[in-house]
Amino acid sequence: MKIILLKENLKTGLLIMEKVASSNLSLPILRNVLIKTNTKVQLTTTDLEMAITHFISGKIEESGSITIPVTTLSEIANNLKSEKIVLEKKNKNLFLKTDNYEALLQGINEEEFPIIPKIKNKDEFIEINSNLLANSLESVITAASFSEVRPEISGVLFSFEPGVIKLVATDSFRLAEKTINQEQLKINFEKGFKTIIPLKTVDALIRVIKQQETERVKIYFDSNQVLFCINDTEIISRLIGGNFPDYQQIIPKDLKTKIIIKNQELIDAIKISGAFIPRSNEIKITTNKDHKFLEIFSQDSSLGENRYRVPAEIEGSDRVISFNWRYLIDGLRSIKEEELFLGISEETKPTLIKAVKSPSFFYILMPLKSS
Amino acid sequence: MKIILLKENLKTGLLIMEKVASSNLSLPILRNVLIKTNTKVQLTTTDLEMAITHFISGKIEESGSITIPVTTLSEIANNLKSEKIVLEKKNKNLFLKTDNYEALLQGINEEEFPIIPKIKNKDEFIEINSNLLANSLESVITAASFSEVRPEISGVLFSFEPGVIKLVATDSFRLAEKTINQEQLKINFEKGFKTIIPLKTVDALIRVIKQQETERVKIYFDSNQVLFCINDTEIISRLIGGNFPDYQQIIPKDLKTKIIIKNQELIDAIKISGAFIPRSNEIKITTNKDHKFLEIFSQDSSLGENRYRVPAEIEGSDRVISFNWRYLIDGLRSIKEEELFLGISEETKPTLIKAVKSPSFFYILMPLKSS
Repeated sequence: MKIILLKENLKTGLLIMEKVASSNLSLPILRNVLIKTNTKVQLTTTDLEMAITHFISGKIEESGSITIPVTTLSEIANNLKSEKIVLEKKNKNLFLKTDNYEALLQGINEEEFPIIPKIKNKDEFIEINSNLLANSLESVITAASFSEVRPEISGVLFSFEPGVIKLVATDSFRLAEKTINQEQLKINFEKGFKTIIPLKTVDALIRVIKQQETERVKIYFDSNQVLFCINDTEIISRLIGGNFPDYQQIIPKDLKTKIIIKNQELIDAIKISGAFIPRSNEIKITTNKDHKFLEIFSQDSSLGENRYRVPAEIEGSDRVISFNWRYLIDGLRSIKEEELFLGISEETKPTLIKAVKSPSFFYILMPLKSS
Repeated sequence: MKIILLKENLKTGLLIMEKVASSNLSLPILRNVLIKTNTKVQLTTTDLEMAITHFISGKIEESGSITIPVTTLSEIANNLKSEKIVLEKKNKNLFLKTDNYEALLQGINEEEFPIIPKIKNKDEFIEINSNLLANSLESVITAASFSEVRPEISGVLFSFEPGVIKLVATDSFRLAEKTINQEQLKINFEKGFKTIIPLKTVDALIRVIKQQETERVKIYFDSNQVLFCINDTEIISRLIGGNFPDYQQIIPKDLKTKIIIKNQELIDAIKISGAFIPRSNEIKITTNKDHKFLEIFSQDSSLGENRYRVPAEIEGSDRVISFNWRYLIDGLRSIKEEELFLGISEETKPTLIKAVKSPSFFYILMPLKSS
């Protein structure tokens, strides 16, 4: 193998690779990037659950392949000043050369690199605006957290229904759902289906979309894999088996208290109340319908107590509810709108939070048992 | 005590306090800021070795004092939107109030707060441009590190000689000296003297100068204390006893190899060579007089090897010297000039590093025993 690359192209490619290459000590090959010549130069890393492949242009003088530790190669690419880099395989090592720099890097042969799976059926796909997808996923993953015990919630539910996609995530204390409508989508599937995509894949997808300047993402599925094509980058990942919780039943419906409040003001109040309680997470929210405000209260046995009043329009019964302030603020921050709607059916049941103006996203949060 | 403060003033004051207030669990009072009324409102924190006092304007409705956890108070000040804050002592607690927020903070009485020492003789002082002092200190402390065993090098030597101040720091592997000349100083002392100021005090001083917009710093000494006056802030600190190493003898004098090289190019080369050796610090520098470059070489048993050639003007004997790359790059970075001079007397003796154009700073670095 002998190839000549623009340093900037290699740098961009390695930036995409870096986060996937794990520091798996028992399998050093997973810390390596596979460099392989095709019509373009292909870079691939994998953690066995997902793989990212990125194609860059380059002058291929001799075809071939090699695998090299990705962090070493990116450190070099990030710090070199030269525009061009020559990569040449010498035995099983990589010889890297610029006008004033050279390195001999110990490689591992391609044969030891895991086989990257493929999706055969490329007739059925979904096409979607890439920023819309990244922003939608970002808004829901705030409600998710990795769980060894419950793999089915360690991912994002992609639910394809006629004309819409719903993205849903939960950690069982809170849940977020985002709906993407038909006009923003091209769905080329015959019938609806549901599948769960691992959080790590979702993170990688968001990151790649933000690194690349691209308008559209194409998504392909088979029964246990998903493939995202973003410009010159492909992410292939296993899917999570099992059933995502049936969350329809916990969405509060008979709302007895309805609150309209400025999002940023509520965030500021919760931040200050949260900072007051280093040893706890509990803040108490009290509605005051007559005086048109929410009171946010928190206390710490050794620091003292504090209360913040935030102006609000309140309809229905008065309430006193306790929340984990971190979970509450996560939800508010994932709603990038000025005015917020909070709906409460009962004090022991989840509270519904969404933007007043945009109905495509909601966040529901279980209250704490008041202490 | 009852005072009304502008939030911005309190915020600025607490920002200065925060870093000093230690998380000393056995002495909770050291986590507190003393708030006290004089002609102005005085904020003070101490770690028993040094104390910072900052004065802010405010409306004093009732005089008095209280101490309060500094982090809690700054979290509140940082997140409040109101312009004005009322602070009122109620029993031994602090009642804090704005238009839409109130907090009752548990305090500790002033009597339990350590007594802050004073310097009596204020006739003798040094006056110096504040940014010059901060930048000079920053350039030398890169060579220092805190040592329990050798307190005399856990600080910066301030050496006052007729018409100049020399600032010196070392960790015994490297040493940095900065000279500040007469024309940049006002020295109001009768005779020269030397003293060692603790690193933590130097850090605090640099930070305070950068936070404040002020032109001059006044420095007062007595036999075991130093006082820095920076606008509305005062830092008082103990001095370190003991003798700073007599470093004159290790400054290389009979330079047999002289190198002129671009600082940034050398930094880039060392960065890349350093990144190549995660398990070691040793890089090898070889002069090539005929071909007019320095070669920077490093190798790692499992990654491989690499060499970087940096153009240089070289005079005198050819050399091969090994350095700890981190120490070398520290020195280069503290010289903010384009062109660098490196001088070598013998390969086993320290190398001298300074800017070609500005002779007021030098850095000397011990080589590693070549492996």
